[in-house]
Amino acid sequence: MSILRSLPEQVDFEAPALAAAGLGQWEIDLSSDSARCSPRAEALLGLAQGPSPRTLSSLLDAFIPEDRSAIAAAFSMVRSTGCLQFERRIRHAIDGTIRWLHVKGGLSEDASAPARLMGIVADVTEWRSHQERRHQSESMAAISHVCGRIAHDYNNFLMAVGTNLEMYEEQVTGSERARRFYDAAQDGLQRGARFNESLMSLAGRHQLHLAPVRVDALLLALEPALRTQMEATINIELLRPSGPLICTTDARQLEAAIQQLATNAQDAMPGGGTLRLSLKERVFDDREAATYGVAPGPFGVIAVDDTGIGIDADGIAHVVEPFFTTKAARRAKGLGLSLAYMLARRSGGFIDIASRLGQGTSVQIYLPHII
Amino acid sequence: MSILRSLPEQVDFEAPALAAAGLGQWEIDLSSDSARCSPRAEALLGLAQGPSPRTLSSLLDAFIPEDRSAIAAAFSMVRSTGCLQFERRIRHAIDGTIRWLHVKGGLSEDASAPARLMGIVADVTEWRSHQERRHQSESMAAISHVCGRIAHDYNNFLMAVGTNLEMYEEQVTGSERARRFYDAAQDGLQRGARFNESLMSLAGRHQLHLAPVRVDALLLALEPALRTQMEATINIELLRPSGPLICTTDARQLEAAIQQLATNAQDAMPGGGTLRLSLKERVFDDREAATYGVAPGPFGVIAVDDTGIGIDADGIAHVVEPFFTTKAARRAKGLGLSLAYMLARRSGGFIDIASRLGQGTSVQIYLPHII
Repeated sequence: MSILRSLPEQVDFEAPALAAAGLGQWEIDLSSDSARCSPRAEALLGLAQGPSPRTLSSLLDAFIPEDRSAIAAAFSMVRSTGCLQFERRIRHAIDGTIRWLHVKGGLSEDASAPARLMGIVADVTEWRSHQERRHQSESMAAISHVCGRIAHDYNNFLMAVGTNLEMYEEQVTGSERARRFYDAAQDGLQRGARFNESLMSLAGRHQLHLAPVRVDALLLALEPALRTQMEATINIELLRPSGPLICTTDARQLEAAIQQLATNAQDAMPGGGTLRLSLKERVFDDREAATYGVAPGPFGVIAVDDTGIGIDADGIAHVVEPFFTTKAARRAKGLGLSLAYMLARRSGGFIDIASRLGQGTSVQIYLPHII
Repeated sequence: MSILRSLPEQVDFEAPALAAAGLGQWEIDLSSDSARCSPRAEALLGLAQGPSPRTLSSLLDAFIPEDRSAIAAAFSMVRSTGCLQFERRIRHAIDGTIRWLHVKGGLSEDASAPARLMGIVADVTEWRSHQERRHQSESMAAISHVCGRIAHDYNNFLMAVGTNLEMYEEQVTGSERARRFYDAAQDGLQRGARFNESLMSLAGRHQLHLAPVRVDALLLALEPALRTQMEATINIELLRPSGPLICTTDARQLEAAIQQLATNAQDAMPGGGTLRLSLKERVFDDREAATYGVAPGPFGVIAVDDTGIGIDADGIAHVVEPFFTTKAARRAKGLGLSLAYMLARRSGGFIDIASRLGQGTSVQIYLPHII
């Protein structure tokens, strides 16, 4: 209270407020295409030391080429709306990382001056990734709900058909040849029932047997099977901690998930490559745990890494969705990632996927670690 | 260029930049629980005229009660992270509207002073609604893709079973009683096939017959059927423009969608009420069109409004998802809204839903208007 009282009532606190919030400022003279940035804005834009004022186009060059047409569209709206707002990616000129920036501004309120745009810029990479994660989890919850409802309805149809087919078979007489059609019909019903089972898993309605599992031992035991399953062009590495690492999960489902992820990895390396399975421990504090929507504490992290074709940035946001496929996201083929996602979630963990086109993909399964 | 050159190189432009971006500033003295806001921050928080400095808790009271525990959690992170960031809803004290505010700040960089938080506040209601719309459309695209893939696989199973069942029936002999089991099995297959059809519609794979449709005439022709279909406790109103209004859509699917929405509306009014069907025209400029992900131009808007129980804020974001249900979202029962969503999207329009608990729901179908 004393500090605030000692300040004059009308003191400006724009500069320290912007500093504390990590925002930079900029202004653009629309008539001359020149722009000026505060030092923090320059740093956020990842610009190397340069002349001031800059040209507008040199500022826009900080953004990645894929995003520039959207930025041009945002600028073209300024004339009608008086406002500029977009959220786009830069590639940092110095460290080369991709960051999301939020740019917001408007025409200067000084009507006597020529058209000037002014505003702020903020790095929203972490905030955005948090939001995307929340949306992904909502989207997966909706998909999983839909799969469950569909499986439930189909189960009723399949049961009705199956029961009546059996009753019909008991009441009729026919040749050996007729029997083959009966068997083929039954086979179709069974394939439907198996498909229904995987939908039930996607819906999280499949029963899990959650128990303490020695994940280090499980990986070691799985290695020979993986060597048999993989083609000879795939080099397999296994990195385990020296001691036991125990997580809460369903051992059989985890084995199946890892085998499926290994197959996806192989599909992503048509010319051969390295499949690296590794296991480590990580501890999440409250903040990290909140980011991933889990309880804070220690996690066992199983990583399935390949040196394959990779998944592009747009694909990676959707890669856990069932049946999702793009040419650049061949690893997502089938339901492997979706089932791994559900298993991790239902075990109290999550999965994290990182990828670079042409360099490979890393799928990390986080499971609660029992110490 | 002349303007920029005439400015001294190091002039502060924080204040005009904040003004142009519409941001307010605030500071909080953590030791005394007192806070100070810039006039714009006060306006954004929707505060009535009050003393300055304010208490922190009087600021937090601007936020709606449901959001306060999340804000408290954000404050509790300041000690470990040095940062404060949250996006939560206020109810404007003067005009009563709900707005989303983004608050971002950090501990003052002045290490000699006692712990002070400073930062900015922005109204992100429109930005957020744009993002939510984009996420909803991505989520629906994913759900629709999943429905399509499932329907495709099930179609194969049902076809295999159906074909073999028929072949079997040709090869065997049995009684009239046996025949009934055969018919019951066929009936199960047909129910499965009909369900498959609706999944195909959700997947947007159902063939649409898009053509110019006189929507005003369609509504007039539909009215008698609705009066027959609705219970006597439901009062029906129809508001049409005096002239013809022609939109691009599939006439039969639109009729079915309206009838389904009317049934949903009736379900939301168990004690009776008013169902109002109305039709008007709206023109979208580039900006509005971008918000809704459609092409700019004129739209015909068919509104199906009720005076029923309404849908809560959390439900409304998910209400178009197939099979979505909550107690407060009974209008979403079944696939009516999802199918209306797909029809509008495939016609080049969209649907918009507004609702207030206890007051009713308005579903608006926007279709491209042909002039």
